[in-house]
Amino acid sequence: MNIRVYYEDTDVGGVVYHSNYLNFCERARSQLFFDAGRSPILSDGHFVAKHIEADYIKSAKFGDVVEVKTALLQSRNASFTLLQEIYRDLERLFTMKIELVYINFEGNIAKIPDSDREFLATTLQ
Amino acid sequence: MNIRVYYEDTDVGGVVYHSNYLNFCERARSQLFFDAGRSPILSDGHFVAKHIEADYIKSAKFGDVVEVKTALLQSRNASFTLLQEIYRDLERLFTMKIELVYINFEGNIAKIPDSDREFLATTLQ
Amino acid sequence: MNIRVYYEDTDVGGVVYHSNYLNFCERARSQLFFDAGRSPILSDGHFVAKHIEADYIKSAKFGDVVEVKTALLQSRNASFTLLQEIYRDLERLFTMKIELVYINFEGNIAKIPDSDREFLATTLQ
Amino acid sequence: MNIRVYYEDTDVGGVVYHSNYLNFCERARSQLFFDAGRSPILSDGHFVAKHIEADYIKSAKFGDVVEVKTALLQSRNASFTLLQEIYRDLERLFTMKIELVYINFEGNIAKIPDSDREFLATTLQ
Repeated sequence: MNIRVYYEDTDVGGVVYHSNYLNFCERARSQLFFDAGRSPILSDGHFVAKHIEADYIKSAKFGDVVEVKTALLQSRNASFTLLQEIYRDLERLFTMKIELVYINFEGNIAKIPDSDREFLATTLQ
Repeated sequence: MNIRVYYEDTDVGGVVYHSNYLNFCERARSQLFFDAGRSPILSDGHFVAKHIEADYIKSAKFGDVVEVKTALLQSRNASFTLLQEIYRDLERLFTMKIELVYINFEGNIAKIPDSDREFLATTLQ
Repeated sequence: MNIRVYYEDTDVGGVVYHSNYLNFCERARSQLFFDAGRSPILSDGHFVAKHIEADYIKSAKFGDVVEVKTALLQSRNASFTLLQEIYRDLERLFTMKIELVYINFEGNIAKIPDSDREFLATTLQ
Repeated sequence: MNIRVYYEDTDVGGVVYHSNYLNFCERARSQLFFDAGRSPILSDGHFVAKHIEADYIKSAKFGDVVEVKTALLQSRNASFTLLQEIYRDLERLFTMKIELVYINFEGNIAKIPDSDREFLATTLQ
């Protein structure tokens, strides 16, 4: 998924504000569902961030077009872990491991629906 | 209501990103309710922006503390209009007229509950 | 320009946060330059918002793909005025008149470089 | 540092958008400087995020007032590591270890000025 860096993504330091890399990664996760004609809001719940480990390697600047690459590291009953990396051409700017947990609409951790687990496993392999 | 300008509020231009002045004004509107031990999400609905007229006079910069002043211009059954101005000390940076309309949880325009109309009229006079 | 609505664009009200429509319009303005291999940060300055009049007609929701249409209303030496409208398919959600003024890197209002005035006039006619 | 959760901080899931916890922590870091009459933009550079490890424990909701607590874990010549935790009353919602590195205005890693290292060590002990 390609993302353009606009004014709103930058700060007075002249580069992308640090938390916006997480937003770019979230867009890429949602887009996996949208591209397949699905929604990341499933029939009985949705995914929320549980744990994040991120490395900032280089800065993205205003006007850059960056690419978010997403790979599945681990899949469990109620959660899964992704590796997401942001590149500008061949240069890696940012890398993040993120564990996402499935929460139903009552706010409790729940089993990811089978069809969605399969969809994620197929899409991200 | 005083608001500090942080990194996230600025952009590569070195000043506050233009739409964030609207956010500052929204914080001040919500804070009117919070300060009175109320919530801007009322019993059967909440307010959404309908019309905005805004003038950008001077820029707020990183680290500035700005003040949002809010006055009631007009009150109607289902909407009201505010004048909100942002100052840095005595200097006026931004001014906005905003009409807000009351929307119930079904998404329809609805009459503002009487107690909330009175609260707004009293608080903003 | 088509824009997808992601989680970050929404708020607890379930729809796009009101100031983010301004962000969408700003992305479309910047994209005019990027699409032509240019940058909205010109050789000696850039554009800042001076005056905005906006109408909120319908709400965009999570997952929507909206389109921003931009037309030139007026062009002057140091500023220009655009009409920007956001559509979801044939439905108009938002409309904004925005006056943008050209500011040089010293922070003063300045004449828009001729080549950029011509570029804008040609691109937006 | 106390922070109120406003509409802009939430998303359609009804709680604070995951990357905004990083923004809250950044506000608290900047505020350390502002409270002392200093700026987080130092004489010859500023701090940028290098590495983050974050745990999301509970969600903050619209209207909540949360507190960010900041402790110094390690201080080095060109970087330091903080532990930042976000509480709602006695309940811990979020915890993050963040390594920040000092970058001069040419964009290179640089030694933190001595007076600022001392300031941070004193303020955060």
